[in-house]
Amino acid sequence: MLVPNKNPKVYDQVIEKIKDKIKYGEIKKGDKLPTEREMAESLEVSRASVREAIRALEVIGLIESRHGAGNYIRTNFNNSLLEPLSIMFMLQESSPKEMYDLRETLELQCSKLAAKNIDDSELKLLTELLDKMYVASSEEESVELDIKFHQLIAKASRNVLLINVLNVISQLVDEFIRNARMQIFHEGNTKESLLWIHENLLRNLKKRDESLAHNAMQEHFDLIRKSYGYEN
Amino acid sequence: MLVPNKNPKVYDQVIEKIKDKIKYGEIKKGDKLPTEREMAESLEVSRASVREAIRALEVIGLIESRHGAGNYIRTNFNNSLLEPLSIMFMLQESSPKEMYDLRETLELQCSKLAAKNIDDSELKLLTELLDKMYVASSEEESVELDIKFHQLIAKASRNVLLINVLNVISQLVDEFIRNARMQIFHEGNTKESLLWIHENLLRNLKKRDESLAHNAMQEHFDLIRKSYGYEN
Repeated sequence: MLVPNKNPKVYDQVIEKIKDKIKYGEIKKGDKLPTEREMAESLEVSRASVREAIRALEVIGLIESRHGAGNYIRTNFNNSLLEPLSIMFMLQESSPKEMYDLRETLELQCSKLAAKNIDDSELKLLTELLDKMYVASSEEESVELDIKFHQLIAKASRNVLLINVLNVISQLVDEFIRNARMQIFHEGNTKESLLWIHENLLRNLKKRDESLAHNAMQEHFDLIRKSYGYEN
Repeated sequence: MLVPNKNPKVYDQVIEKIKDKIKYGEIKKGDKLPTEREMAESLEVSRASVREAIRALEVIGLIESRHGAGNYIRTNFNNSLLEPLSIMFMLQESSPKEMYDLRETLELQCSKLAAKNIDDSELKLLTELLDKMYVASSEEESVELDIKFHQLIAKASRNVLLINVLNVISQLVDEFIRNARMQIFHEGNTKESLLWIHENLLRNLKKRDESLAHNAMQEHFDLIRKSYGYEN
């Protein structure tokens, strides 16, 4: 049975200690943490408190607990904020339009930064993705290519924090707007418009023109907004 | 002593159950959760697993554990994402400029939405804050008024998700850029420029002109960017 903590915030102190080690570079991405027993001993707290702290960091998506192999700091944080944000979203009864608007804001910024920072190999990859979009044989395939296209533009922004936040908002959209990306393919003529719009986006990224790339992304979102009925 | 979980993901199932109750409206903001014992019994899991789940939701900032009074769903989520984001930020060795750029993106969007959605009482409050800024007797007071001014514009955007994300990014800036907001007051003439810029922002919000409000906020950030040496 669990021994109740005298001080209910002991687990918080454990998290602070881990944070400090990260801050001073003693713990890095991919590192294995000491065992729960070792941490309990060195921090002079109960193993229950250590475990609670580890669990919390696991839920946040910062730590990965590998069965029988111990606890590791994750190397990517793609899903890190999704859980808290999705619960917050539900509790606050935010509208899907709100997350949609936020996604648009972040993608517009990505397109500007990408126009400045994208490299030739990324432009080549975008071109290949677009070629595949033209011949995609199913909606599922189109959706998958579309996601990759946008993720690559986000990556080219070179702002890791922006990429993280956009990633979690995009997942939130996908979680709460059922078949969000599918839906737009059901509109008449939209597939052709979407292809044209991605083509246009790529052309302006190639010109490395921030303002044109931004406008092309804006056209993209105006189209989707129309499909969803989220008119301004 | 803690009884080890056979299944290391039991606490995750508990979180899922809580999420479901939130999703279907059975649990709302401010609600008290059943006791840990009750939850353990009804979900047929150990109390340790319930406790781990509760702790994780507490770290995320969704649950508040009141000493001796039980666990409550929070009513505001102002700090909810700060902990995970701040750890991610350190692990990824993101630059302060990255978070600064993200804050700018979000504030620009707020200024546009605020121009559309702000009401008369909020405009009145902004005017009062600006009046106080003119006569502020200390840097601390100026900083505090500045924060309130921006928070009120964010609130007027009416996008709760945008407000949440901006709030956490702003806190991240304040946490990692020491004296971020103080710093700019040390630049020559900047206080006057800042007052003028807030004045201009308010004027354009009063006109309810999205584009002018956006440009005024952009001028604001251009000035700060210059003070920080974060030139484009």
